[in-house]
Amino acid sequence: MEDKLKQLKTILAEISDLEYAVFLLAWDQQTYMPPAGAEERGQQIGTLNKLAHRRFTSDEVGKLLDELAPAVAQLPPDSDEARLIKVTRRKYEQYTKVPSEMIVELAELTSIAFSVWQQARPENNFAKFQPYLEKIVDNRRRYAELFAPYDHIYDPLLDRYEPGMKTAQVQAIFNQLRPQQVELIQAISAKPQVDDSFLHQAYNGQKQWDFGVEVITKFGYPWNRGRQDKAAHPFTTEMGLNDVRITTRILPEYIGSALFSTMHECGHALYDLGIDPALARTPLSNLASLALHESQSRMWENLVGRSLPFWEHFYPRLQEYFPAQLGNIDLWTFYKGINKVEPSLIRVEADEATYNLHIMLRLELEIALMEGSLQVKDLPEAWNSRMQEYLGVTPPNDSDGVLQDVHWSDGYIGYFSTYALGNLISLQLWERINADLPDLSEQIRHGEFSSLLGWLRENIHHHGAKYEAQEMVKRITGSEINPAAYMRYIKTKYGEIYGL
Amino acid sequence: MEDKLKQLKTILAEISDLEYAVFLLAWDQQTYMPPAGAEERGQQIGTLNKLAHRRFTSDEVGKLLDELAPAVAQLPPDSDEARLIKVTRRKYEQYTKVPSEMIVELAELTSIAFSVWQQARPENNFAKFQPYLEKIVDNRRRYAELFAPYDHIYDPLLDRYEPGMKTAQVQAIFNQLRPQQVELIQAISAKPQVDDSFLHQAYNGQKQWDFGVEVITKFGYPWNRGRQDKAAHPFTTEMGLNDVRITTRILPEYIGSALFSTMHECGHALYDLGIDPALARTPLSNLASLALHESQSRMWENLVGRSLPFWEHFYPRLQEYFPAQLGNIDLWTFYKGINKVEPSLIRVEADEATYNLHIMLRLELEIALMEGSLQVKDLPEAWNSRMQEYLGVTPPNDSDGVLQDVHWSDGYIGYFSTYALGNLISLQLWERINADLPDLSEQIRHGEFSSLLGWLRENIHHHGAKYEAQEMVKRITGSEINPAAYMRYIKTKYGEIYGL
Repeated sequence: MEDKLKQLKTILAEISDLEYAVFLLAWDQQTYMPPAGAEERGQQIGTLNKLAHRRFTSDEVGKLLDELAPAVAQLPPDSDEARLIKVTRRKYEQYTKVPSEMIVELAELTSIAFSVWQQARPENNFAKFQPYLEKIVDNRRRYAELFAPYDHIYDPLLDRYEPGMKTAQVQAIFNQLRPQQVELIQAISAKPQVDDSFLHQAYNGQKQWDFGVEVITKFGYPWNRGRQDKAAHPFTTEMGLNDVRITTRILPEYIGSALFSTMHECGHALYDLGIDPALARTPLSNLASLALHESQSRMWENLVGRSLPFWEHFYPRLQEYFPAQLGNIDLWTFYKGINKVEPSLIRVEADEATYNLHIMLRLELEIALMEGSLQVKDLPEAWNSRMQEYLGVTPPNDSDGVLQDVHWSDGYIGYFSTYALGNLISLQLWERINADLPDLSEQIRHGEFSSLLGWLRENIHHHGAKYEAQEMVKRITGSEINPAAYMRYIKTKYGEIYGL
Repeated sequence: MEDKLKQLKTILAEISDLEYAVFLLAWDQQTYMPPAGAEERGQQIGTLNKLAHRRFTSDEVGKLLDELAPAVAQLPPDSDEARLIKVTRRKYEQYTKVPSEMIVELAELTSIAFSVWQQARPENNFAKFQPYLEKIVDNRRRYAELFAPYDHIYDPLLDRYEPGMKTAQVQAIFNQLRPQQVELIQAISAKPQVDDSFLHQAYNGQKQWDFGVEVITKFGYPWNRGRQDKAAHPFTTEMGLNDVRITTRILPEYIGSALFSTMHECGHALYDLGIDPALARTPLSNLASLALHESQSRMWENLVGRSLPFWEHFYPRLQEYFPAQLGNIDLWTFYKGINKVEPSLIRVEADEATYNLHIMLRLELEIALMEGSLQVKDLPEAWNSRMQEYLGVTPPNDSDGVLQDVHWSDGYIGYFSTYALGNLISLQLWERINADLPDLSEQIRHGEFSSLLGWLRENIHHHGAKYEAQEMVKRITGSEINPAAYMRYIKTKYGEIYGL
């Protein structure tokens, strides 16, 4: 058994090294690669992904997993070894179900679809994108069918991004959440609106960068194990457990972008930086679930970074950086400004009160597409009517409507709900953390984050991908994923800000 | 045949993509990687190298090469296809001769030897390094023996870095060169020395960088296909034919380092940037020979960058950058300063007149170690006595003597002579180029380099690794590699500078 496990780990380490190399190739592509390198870079990423996939789905891995299967019963069920075999087997079964022709087909399809989408969005031309999206939907339906029987055809797609989660569960959660969130937004709309114009002025880029660095240094981002660079679309990536990098985007006329994206990505990075080194170079050091990961980025961005205690500490410092812009803006005005609620067209610009509604809309449309109850050609109309229903706004064009996200052109169907689940989980964890660390607010008010990070490391980060999201949330909070904590939070927060 | 060649090319493309990924992993390691990432990075580079090696030495490649062998006779001998099969076969036979245990042994050995050397050099402690170097020498002797019968035991080592070149050939070339070069240096020593103190003052780093960028932009370095970054030890690397990157090192108190290293690395990069795209992702787009490659870097650094016509154009501009430092230094004084001859202890700081002697010394010692006529323990003494004989200086300690180079600790035995051969080749080519482009000096005097680059692209760069160094030099100049042109050059140049 020992010997078989060692053989398996040797193969998994090779695959892990290939994956890290892909992450570096992709990081470099977004940061420093000279433009003419793009075509060759695409080939390199394609080749390394193919080699990693080929090795992982090899008969050798299958045989080792079969041989190790009886041993799992002997191991403590939460041991690294038992979990490693379980998670690897799950992934192996998922991967080997998919014929390589389908993977190649999707890769080729999305490569074209992405460039068509890049043209179609500025041209406001959904019709141009439609035939490619139809093919992607068809490919994804055929993918899902490989996993029949299923409770719901959307399950296998969701499972790719959120292991173990079922469509029915997500629907149940969102059905609870939606009416309360719509009601809250309507209540806010009836109140006088918040002014955030002071956030939209000229802010020196280097100073924005420096302030962000100051903040995440206090959060505990270890600069000897990571770095920050600029990228058009901020992201976190890692080339190992000791090399977890973030990127940010600085807008010269709006301070909100770099500031909150830096904190958000730092939240992701701190998760990966906290994974137990014993899990290195195995699938257990990958992310457990996108929702759990997003719970960490959202926690640092929103529950810490948009909180009043945080700014009681940092606002005087920010005013020192930007006396001309913020010298005459008091703390409460600033706090309200960065928490302004405004139903808007674009998901990535949405505030905490409206964000989840953008997600629910997408989830519902994706499910309908997979069920076949909605045709791709009818998407724009379905999009617009739901926007009106949930957010009270109707996109004036498809560029700011159905064409806004890159995900579908990349073949990412099944992904979106993890964003909203992450929001909900962040609050379930937050209530638990505040019970365990009763003076957390006071610590944050003093710019002190080590207890918080310590708690997250011990209870979440350390475990890597050993537990799925539901299991992790239940272990920590005693409950399954649900929206109660989130609703308590936004009702209280926006109640104060808007005087509801 | 078509089909077999296509299969071979598919495999070679995969290997090429793995190698490019390794180059990016290594580039990042030297430029942007956070320090704690070093250990994992080492694993990743090791794994990808192993996968590339495993694939290249696979039976599948051997079988394809066997099947393609008869076809080569049908192909035009200089065709891409014939050369591809020939070069691939040569490399395959070389690689498959070496048992993987020997490769692993060397990798483990050099990994330790490198860190021991890093300690031993500042401690001036050759005895500490000696046992590791003994093991490396032993490993390299056993490597060479795998290729028996050979004309000389050093041949297989030389062949690793300079395909097709024999020890006897290099010895014959160097035996012609050495006495003439020693004589020249003695003549220079008898003359009044040149003042270059003005090069050693405070020079703003950003301005040094900017001037270097201006120069290589004029050389024709295409910034959409490459970039420059800072690194402790300047190097050139590529992640594809359209992504060839250079690095430089800026010393705040000496302008010579960044300036000439930027030109040197640009010379390397222009080679790779000129390779025929039809050779992409095959061994023919790798470097043909280290000597040929070095001929290009030396040409741009020395024959262009240390020439009077070059500075007639650029010196007024450099004076604009640094009026305080160079405003009162006239062109001729500056030109003499950057061409100062001074027999010194350290190879990497050596001038054009003395550099080759540092190389010859190393070659002779390496050959003696391989032959067994010199023991590792006797190296320091052998080093010092040859330094006295060739350069008239004796190292006061081993740090600045036998311990100065990293190469041996890395297992690079067989490498050094390519540096000197590159110098000789650069002059053989230079005479040919000046015959073909009679107004080249005049063009350079006007900051015009496109004819030169065009000539190099067409006659050298374009061919990638299709021809070995001897063959390439003979095709272009009609002669084999020899020191006559080099001696003509340094005698004329230093004759003028020192009034010989």
